[in-house]
Amino acid sequence: MSGDHEPGDPSIDGDTSFGGKVTADGGGALTGLFAPERVAVVGATDREGSVGRAVTENLIAEFDGEVVPVNPSRDEVLGLSCVGSVADADADMAVVAVPPGAVIDVVRECGESGVRNVVVLTAGFGETGAEGADREQQLRSVAAEYDLNLVGPNSLGVMSSPRGLNATFGPDAPPAGGVSFMSQSGAFVTAVVDWAKEQGIGFKDVVSLGNKAVLDETDFVRAWGDDPDTDVVVGYLESIDDGRAFVDAARETTDDTPVTVVKSGRTDAGAQAASSHTGAIAGSDRAYEAGLDAAGVLRAESVQELFDSARALAGGDVPESDGVAVVTNAGGPGVMATDAVGDAERLRLASFDDGTVESLSEALPDEANVYNPVDVIGDASVDRFREALDIALRDPDVGSVVVITAPTATLDFGELGEMIADAADEHGVPMAACLMGGGRLADARDVLRERGVPSYFDPARAVGGLESLAEYREVRGRSYPEPEPIDADRERVREILSSVTERSDNRLGVEAMEIFDAYGIPTPEGAVVDDPAEAERIAEGIGEEVVMKIVSPDILHKSDIGGVKVGVPVAEVGDAYEDLVSRARNYQPDATILGVQIQELIDLDDGVETIVGSHTDPQFGPLVMFGLGGVFVEIMEDTTFRLAPVGRDEAAEMTEEIEAAPLLRGARGREAVDLDSVVDAVRRVSQLVADFPSIVELDVNPLVATPDGVRAVDLRLTVDPEELESQS
Amino acid sequence: MSGDHEPGDPSIDGDTSFGGKVTADGGGALTGLFAPERVAVVGATDREGSVGRAVTENLIAEFDGEVVPVNPSRDEVLGLSCVGSVADADADMAVVAVPPGAVIDVVRECGESGVRNVVVLTAGFGETGAEGADREQQLRSVAAEYDLNLVGPNSLGVMSSPRGLNATFGPDAPPAGGVSFMSQSGAFVTAVVDWAKEQGIGFKDVVSLGNKAVLDETDFVRAWGDDPDTDVVVGYLESIDDGRAFVDAARETTDDTPVTVVKSGRTDAGAQAASSHTGAIAGSDRAYEAGLDAAGVLRAESVQELFDSARALAGGDVPESDGVAVVTNAGGPGVMATDAVGDAERLRLASFDDGTVESLSEALPDEANVYNPVDVIGDASVDRFREALDIALRDPDVGSVVVITAPTATLDFGELGEMIADAADEHGVPMAACLMGGGRLADARDVLRERGVPSYFDPARAVGGLESLAEYREVRGRSYPEPEPIDADRERVREILSSVTERSDNRLGVEAMEIFDAYGIPTPEGAVVDDPAEAERIAEGIGEEVVMKIVSPDILHKSDIGGVKVGVPVAEVGDAYEDLVSRARNYQPDATILGVQIQELIDLDDGVETIVGSHTDPQFGPLVMFGLGGVFVEIMEDTTFRLAPVGRDEAAEMTEEIEAAPLLRGARGREAVDLDSVVDAVRRVSQLVADFPSIVELDVNPLVATPDGVRAVDLRLTVDPEELESQS
Repeated sequence: MSGDHEPGDPSIDGDTSFGGKVTADGGGALTGLFAPERVAVVGATDREGSVGRAVTENLIAEFDGEVVPVNPSRDEVLGLSCVGSVADADADMAVVAVPPGAVIDVVRECGESGVRNVVVLTAGFGETGAEGADREQQLRSVAAEYDLNLVGPNSLGVMSSPRGLNATFGPDAPPAGGVSFMSQSGAFVTAVVDWAKEQGIGFKDVVSLGNKAVLDETDFVRAWGDDPDTDVVVGYLESIDDGRAFVDAARETTDDTPVTVVKSGRTDAGAQAASSHTGAIAGSDRAYEAGLDAAGVLRAESVQELFDSARALAGGDVPESDGVAVVTNAGGPGVMATDAVGDAERLRLASFDDGTVESLSEALPDEANVYNPVDVIGDASVDRFREALDIALRDPDVGSVVVITAPTATLDFGELGEMIADAADEHGVPMAACLMGGGRLADARDVLRERGVPSYFDPARAVGGLESLAEYREVRGRSYPEPEPIDADRERVREILSSVTERSDNRLGVEAMEIFDAYGIPTPEGAVVDDPAEAERIAEGIGEEVVMKIVSPDILHKSDIGGVKVGVPVAEVGDAYEDLVSRARNYQPDATILGVQIQELIDLDDGVETIVGSHTDPQFGPLVMFGLGGVFVEIMEDTTFRLAPVGRDEAAEMTEEIEAAPLLRGARGREAVDLDSVVDAVRRVSQLVADFPSIVELDVNPLVATPDGVRAVDLRLTVDPEELESQS
Repeated sequence: MSGDHEPGDPSIDGDTSFGGKVTADGGGALTGLFAPERVAVVGATDREGSVGRAVTENLIAEFDGEVVPVNPSRDEVLGLSCVGSVADADADMAVVAVPPGAVIDVVRECGESGVRNVVVLTAGFGETGAEGADREQQLRSVAAEYDLNLVGPNSLGVMSSPRGLNATFGPDAPPAGGVSFMSQSGAFVTAVVDWAKEQGIGFKDVVSLGNKAVLDETDFVRAWGDDPDTDVVVGYLESIDDGRAFVDAARETTDDTPVTVVKSGRTDAGAQAASSHTGAIAGSDRAYEAGLDAAGVLRAESVQELFDSARALAGGDVPESDGVAVVTNAGGPGVMATDAVGDAERLRLASFDDGTVESLSEALPDEANVYNPVDVIGDASVDRFREALDIALRDPDVGSVVVITAPTATLDFGELGEMIADAADEHGVPMAACLMGGGRLADARDVLRERGVPSYFDPARAVGGLESLAEYREVRGRSYPEPEPIDADRERVREILSSVTERSDNRLGVEAMEIFDAYGIPTPEGAVVDDPAEAERIAEGIGEEVVMKIVSPDILHKSDIGGVKVGVPVAEVGDAYEDLVSRARNYQPDATILGVQIQELIDLDDGVETIVGSHTDPQFGPLVMFGLGGVFVEIMEDTTFRLAPVGRDEAAEMTEEIEAAPLLRGARGREAVDLDSVVDAVRRVSQLVADFPSIVELDVNPLVATPDGVRAVDLRLTVDPEELESQS
């Protein structure tokens, strides 16, 4: 370690990517946090049970750099000489464990003396009410002023195995390995580290994010993407602060490093609990779902799933097919694994080609099953197992393999483990072992752990591990093209939206249908008129019968007050006009009535009602939703969401992935609707809401799709006047 | 042991329930199999690696009765004197490990010499093709002749911990406890027994069912229901041979002993694998689902879920409310547990009353969360934990509790374990511990294991355990009343069905609509006529417009050939008649045309199309299905199944549990349909198919439901002529 550098001298960094505060648009490996040379512990002490002592002890234990206790009232802490202030420590990283009221000054001192990596363990900030929130805001300002890489406050600390760094006050350091782990819960870090030792899961870097005043999930997901020693990024998150920045960063990382997270607060109850735990305002889980998917981040629902997935992903091999071979010496567990493959959305049982079956028939005894799942029978030796495995691994449909063993008398399980690991190495095909037993299979478990092949007791979990790989394979194969540009009259939309500022209400209905024209979204023929004669004139130009709707910003549910008439003969249009207006007046005497909309009658017998909607999520911004109209959205909740805007491919996926999708494709003897025009409408709506953040909610309901195209028949949108102001 | 009894003397049984072959309508604890006095091992040998040696060794190891090796060519096996034949062994149970060709003779000898409990380990029977199947049939005959309790063939054997009986050739005996376990896979038994030692799961009886030639899941589920030492019955099943018998037996058992099983072969791929493993013909998984549900048997999807559930159920306490309290010393894991509660169908987060919140506020520090999930904060002592737990346990809305701890510096985890177990004992409220850590929490894990409180690493699994209890609570609260009797003209139905025997086709359509009249299921007004004039006459009596359908057993999809006309004005009925007949002739010149059905036009605008269907499952017999018509069944697969017949309550549940149920209840501003008449139609259809096993398939599609009642508008049914023959 080069202790003679001047504080603030950038050359102490030892890595060119070190030092700069990682921002959403920049890059950086945060090496200074995980591989510092000299760490100052501000608040170091000998006092038993204190955070300052625990972190100092942990640092002394294994760290291969230097540790400098900072404590003005002591000469020595745990046998190391103390300095009086962080400015005297000549450190490149500081761990801060002083009372909350003293933190700001210490951090400022770090900034002034050139210590750019700071981990604040102290609690009593944003998580504790107004005073703490205020303190956290000051901390953020100081960090920005000095461009600090600051973790916390309210963090357990950071760990990094290559240098033996344990800058936490937790009880243990984790085993070394390729998992880099961030957690929004410090307790979860201590839990996982303790458990990982039993499970043989090894870590590269670990960070307890704390309150994320400065560095957050986006910074670490980016940094680990550039880290050759990180095989897989694992996260426990309760919130994502800037959804779009996270998506951008994660997309770069997931290109070659898988990322898997638990985002808790999935359910209403959980979201409430998370928000009371972290103080973060929760966006909807549908938004997180869409955001994590857009980011290429795998999402686990439980801790177990998280690490099952991480262990499989850490192996590095990615399957080339979704076909799974099951090779087992026990029939029942083979059936269970097959069920699990059947359950898995992204996997299927591989179907062997004739050569494979023939070779297996030659290699295995008569009672064996040579079709998938391959049963090598309970008396199989390691050699027989190996032979079957080799044959299955060469089958072109096999993308990954589950190898299952029960405790049998004929096997040396250490040898079996070596054989499985050898086969995995030679073939480069992902493999998961299902070791169905306890102590008798311990040797196999140890060998596989050592050699990086994931093993599980439960066949369903082994298959779950492989499914993560199949999911990551899809992510790695992605490209993220910009959505195709859309030629739109944005000026016209701005004008229409600004009309709300003239009114007390910030909602718009059919009176804003021109927005669709401006964005090239087809609407039924027609117009909004404000006298009966004009109504008749328009109707005559349309056809024999028309649809008529009252147009009033004050009447949101037109149908409920009889404000919609369908199939009005042209001759009756004048009377119908009067009737609609008087109904509206009766309903609400002071309602603003903008007129009546006369619309072409779309024959629904040939069409399918769809809905395209949008709302703005606090973390991820505008989302676009697609579903079929009526009961499908309202009762079956058969909808799909994406971050807006979407391109053609994404919009097409949306029309494919709803459950009722076959209806669009002409199920039940009907003609298929013009899907291209549905896709086109979805992407145009998504571009509209992306272009105008002031549209906080929008529903095109219905967008009627027929074999000849689509028509946006009705519209409701909500404008945020402040946002509108700021745009114009 | 009373070795001086004469073979065949019933008094050797030592238990009054012993000896009688357990049949579907009888009872019996199968004590002779699990607690014999003197066990003969036929085929006992010293030969290394043989089944005969392994089972003898296992028996010698711990059994507190006597072991008699039977081997005519040896004087002594493993130090015990041999007898030459089972007849000389004076045993009350025999384990058979001789070559397949010798098994029948040995079993006959058992029968003749009064050994009524026989476990056949030998393989090479039904699982190996025609010869083996033949041999298995002979075995079954011999067993029936002598009324034997026979396990196997192709069984790993049986174990029972109270007597130290290990009559298997597996490598280990399980720890003692309250789980009785049956498995259709022998390897799965060895796997579970080995694993259970690590997991601290203890067993009462274990049986490897083998080929189930005689005793099967029904016998054991019944026997364990009568066994006071069995706390929970666990099964791994690939098939259930007689579904109805199993349901009857399981209902009695689940009244006070929970039963949880993996029924594998859930998926298509899994079912195929199971069938090639066991040779059993698989019924549909929907039938198993309905059957297990009717039986009150909990169904797990994976091994892990199976034993997570078993560990929770073994505790014996059942929650009195579905409200769950979460008490944690770590925020993040608390959020995860809350998510898991949110996911659980049968659980919800308990909402504390004011008193609880107040007491918690007094007991806990300011930073604690006193609402559910309760966060006692990382520095909590065992006392603080205990105080919070006691308060939560007294809240009236709390039916069960998850206690979570991460490794913290302040806790003695052995003490924490004792405290949790004490609290569980005192309050009688089910509790699951989530011990989020590894070695640091080992003391807590050991104590809880010892004291019977289930503990898990993953909060989701802890909650999963509690959900099993909530599910079992529902089962235990059930009664199984006979469906209300239905007054039906069964003779008339018999006549209509027998008409198929006069034809080459075994399908019936609208021509059989009178079946509905016979069972009191309303149909639209109308009749089947065979000339145009009659058609007009009938139509005039109905109304202004009618529906007309061609009636031909040869034309299954009437709509496809234009064989249905809706809304025909009375004046046009004659012409329409001719047109329908000529369309049918054009479509299939030799079609049998029975006439044209003239039907009242049901206005679908006020109605909802539903479907009531039925099919006969090979294991469970007739099932009844309910769903909404059209896309809901065909695309969304939104259907529900029950074993037929169903009573009013069950039929009502069916109309409530489909996803689209709100549509029946008047969603989207529509009037609700007459639900009572839907329920009535479902139970009548279910009684019809239960009364007539010859109806192997039936579809009432649609059954139109309106606010005024239901009408069965169309019908398709398939008759099994052989079954019809046997009934008449």
